[in-house]
Amino acid sequence: MHELVRCNGVKEGKMGLGVVVCEGNATGVFTKNKFKSPSVIVTEEHLRRGYIEGIIANSGNANAFTGKRGYDNAKRMCELLAEKLKTEVESVAVASTGVIGVQLDMNWIEEKFEYVYKGLGSGKDKAMAFARSIMTTDKFPKFASYKEDFKIAGVCKGAGMIHPNMATMLAFVFTDAKFEPDELKGMLRTAVKYSFNTISVDGDMSTNDMVLLIAKGECEVGRDRFLKGLKRVCIDLAKQIVRDGEGASKVIKVTILNAKNEEEAFRGARAVVSSTLVKTAVFGNDPNWGRVIASLGYSGIDVNENLDLKLLGFKNGCKVGEVELVLNGNGLGNEGIARRIMENSDEIEFVIDLKLGEGSGYAYGCDLTYDYVRLNSEYTT
Amino acid sequence: MHELVRCNGVKEGKMGLGVVVCEGNATGVFTKNKFKSPSVIVTEEHLRRGYIEGIIANSGNANAFTGKRGYDNAKRMCELLAEKLKTEVESVAVASTGVIGVQLDMNWIEEKFEYVYKGLGSGKDKAMAFARSIMTTDKFPKFASYKEDFKIAGVCKGAGMIHPNMATMLAFVFTDAKFEPDELKGMLRTAVKYSFNTISVDGDMSTNDMVLLIAKGECEVGRDRFLKGLKRVCIDLAKQIVRDGEGASKVIKVTILNAKNEEEAFRGARAVVSSTLVKTAVFGNDPNWGRVIASLGYSGIDVNENLDLKLLGFKNGCKVGEVELVLNGNGLGNEGIARRIMENSDEIEFVIDLKLGEGSGYAYGCDLTYDYVRLNSEYTT
Repeated sequence: MHELVRCNGVKEGKMGLGVVVCEGNATGVFTKNKFKSPSVIVTEEHLRRGYIEGIIANSGNANAFTGKRGYDNAKRMCELLAEKLKTEVESVAVASTGVIGVQLDMNWIEEKFEYVYKGLGSGKDKAMAFARSIMTTDKFPKFASYKEDFKIAGVCKGAGMIHPNMATMLAFVFTDAKFEPDELKGMLRTAVKYSFNTISVDGDMSTNDMVLLIAKGECEVGRDRFLKGLKRVCIDLAKQIVRDGEGASKVIKVTILNAKNEEEAFRGARAVVSSTLVKTAVFGNDPNWGRVIASLGYSGIDVNENLDLKLLGFKNGCKVGEVELVLNGNGLGNEGIARRIMENSDEIEFVIDLKLGEGSGYAYGCDLTYDYVRLNSEYTT
Repeated sequence: MHELVRCNGVKEGKMGLGVVVCEGNATGVFTKNKFKSPSVIVTEEHLRRGYIEGIIANSGNANAFTGKRGYDNAKRMCELLAEKLKTEVESVAVASTGVIGVQLDMNWIEEKFEYVYKGLGSGKDKAMAFARSIMTTDKFPKFASYKEDFKIAGVCKGAGMIHPNMATMLAFVFTDAKFEPDELKGMLRTAVKYSFNTISVDGDMSTNDMVLLIAKGECEVGRDRFLKGLKRVCIDLAKQIVRDGEGASKVIKVTILNAKNEEEAFRGARAVVSSTLVKTAVFGNDPNWGRVIASLGYSGIDVNENLDLKLLGFKNGCKVGEVELVLNGNGLGNEGIARRIMENSDEIEFVIDLKLGEGSGYAYGCDLTYDYVRLNSEYTT
């Protein structure tokens, strides 16, 4: 990322402010929450031109449910950076994450902005400073990159148990490739579908979610090659968000094979990975596949009792083991083996073969732990 | 209940078996889960005649995802009681709750059935024995009754955090009133809409949920009077299920006033009460109304930023306090007062006035606690 942009950030307690300077055609995908943060509204407005020169982001306060004053504050944040860049306010995007319903402390933001702007640079330490500045309950900063004869690099923040909740996800992806805004939009939507939307769908997004893509336009790249790289970067970032789920001890992946169609496969996988009963079972190393079946049954997709279900375990990305739990609809009594695999794994995958059609899909989630409850019952308004 | 039926039950460890003898017109509401338990399938088939003479129910094993053998076993359970009652197998309803994917131990069931049937009676102790026989993680048996010149009485089991999960809910309601099966069906659906469906909707029901209503036909009652009583009994039972939510320390009620219409009011209330971020905030006595707003925003219903939001606290059914948190879309800074009310309450109500239309609705849920995680990660397959 540091090779593509100039950036910097500061984090003081729960409050953070970050700035990225990067000029190019741009597009975004935004939350569908009906109480959109004014920061989201302003950025959507600005991106209609398909071009930006910089991003200003803050953490600790979502600037959501803040009305006209919140809108003015979001505009003012853009203006701060636009003035420095000697450009129009519409050339700046703004993003916010944090507590809802509280007005921004603009004095703090204006003061820190001066400090952050002065320190802008393109070193790795600057990228790290930006990544840290947008973190809330995240335990680690999240980067991903892809390189051929073009570059794509991104940074994001997530945490929260994600679906079925509303931890704000912010992702900023940069590239030196050249595309028109409309082309970028189509490709970003596709990449988001296979990445961030497998961990969090439109319908239940937070008030502040956004994914931005800025293309500096320095090199020509074919669409297919670019989309492949963009998907890689987005999936990498999305998986990091899941791995950092609040209090999570294990990543859960659910893969559905041979559903009626792809849409149903993704929808079914999401239902399973979002079930708090599945999440708690995984936390307890309990291969309770009945809960997987039950959540699949209420997902609304077409199912088939004659299904196969297997469990795979991974540790540090390496396969620990694999065991069939259900074959042709019959439980095989392999729970003992499954439990031992689970105990030795940091990622669990359930693979369900529905034998109905040719649609496959997947979803990522994480287990539900005591720490999740602790983090979320103690996080103060 | 004991005045309307003869019943009995036995509970041994996780396994239980209960029997109710009660002859009359009957109807039911059943899970929409696509992996319906054969017990549900059999009961739906039997209820097509609109008449039953008895119920046999077991706990500890859901008889779900058990295929043809599960179906035969459910039929056999009905047959056991039908033989004793010298009636057709179709005159008996069967219900199951417990672990999914394991075949019933029919030897145990046949043996215990003899014991339970011999002990059938109409005392309070028999009703209690039946209620206990269908419990799983429930901490207390659940009864409700209503009496005018007719009687309605019901028993249920629930537990689980209910929505967004799949703890099986079984409810059996009996009355001496006289109605045709079709009339009963319409009234039961209405009562369920305002009671059990405010804590658990069709779309995410377990493999085994059912609510049965049996009318002995001994006295004529007007529909309106009967429906009023039926709603009361069902709401009472539904609230008991919530109060007994796994690990719950507080009941949460969300009321939405003046939504676009009634359907949206109920849907919005469900989204808020189901948000694990709202649930954990309530556990932590944190009046984090931003989470209420955010979940309302993703519920899909029409919203209005100019809303009012207040918090009420209750202890043992008595009001502890009430405080406005948001007025005309502006946070009032009353979080300190709200926190103290929450600390002293066992039931929290959020009342949201959307000022859009005339639709009102509500939903019940419970907080998400360490004990929920413990119970569900340690519950063995």
